[in-house]
Amino acid sequence: MSEWIDEVGFDDNGLIPAIAQDAESGRILMLAWMNRESLLLTAEKMEAVYWSRSRQRLWHKGEESGHVQKVKEIRFDCDEDVIVLSVEQMGGIACHTGRESCFYRKLENGRWVETDAVIKDPADIYK
Amino acid sequence: MSEWIDEVGFDDNGLIPAIAQDAESGRILMLAWMNRESLLLTAEKMEAVYWSRSRQRLWHKGEESGHVQKVKEIRFDCDEDVIVLSVEQMGGIACHTGRESCFYRKLENGRWVETDAVIKDPADIYK
Repeated sequence: MSEWIDEVGFDDNGLIPAIAQDAESGRILMLAWMNRESLLLTAEKMEAVYWSRSRQRLWHKGEESGHVQKVKEIRFDCDEDVIVLSVEQMGGIACHTGRESCFYRKLENGRWVETDAVIKDPADIYK
Repeated sequence: MSEWIDEVGFDDNGLIPAIAQDAESGRILMLAWMNRESLLLTAEKMEAVYWSRSRQRLWHKGEESGHVQKVKEIRFDCDEDVIVLSVEQMGGIACHTGRESCFYRKLENGRWVETDAVIKDPADIYK
């Protein structure tokens, strides 16, 4: 019997991009990367576990900040090389800058304009 | 004066992942890749232009299918290495399988289960 994980395509670095989307509002919160182990752990715990490329280790989202992502649904795409997590974002903050979403800037008249305020000072998040 | 495009981080292959999200429903439609030129063209035309990794050429989404993506908004993230496009999806079909979204399968009891019907037979889309 084939396992679901064997249908997932990882890239040459053994990684797959994973998009986290707020299950309620539909807002896209962030994109991070997963390796096979982190995707298996995500499905097991139903909490987002990514692979930190900068730190080269498993990253249980919220492990420092408390901003855990409870996973409601896991999807993958037609090419089997992108994951979408539908999540409940603990604390309402996904971004390390203290904002709800990492996508807090939009292009307007040839400039990146901030659209979201900081909800919580990162200095108070990461102590 | 710094140009907005110079703030965007492309990876070692000169690419950045771009997520297309339906502007109305919030549904995530697909993820594709852009190089610098395709992102510039997207902002200029306000229609999604990706870089096809398989065909190694610019890919004006909908050029064959008619399923153009009208871009309402372009965002990027805190790390400046992911793009989100808020789009109006022409024809209501983003996926080459003839479905609204490429994310038409979810994980359920250890299996990938299809949740979306085909709206239009691909044989009728790509003639």
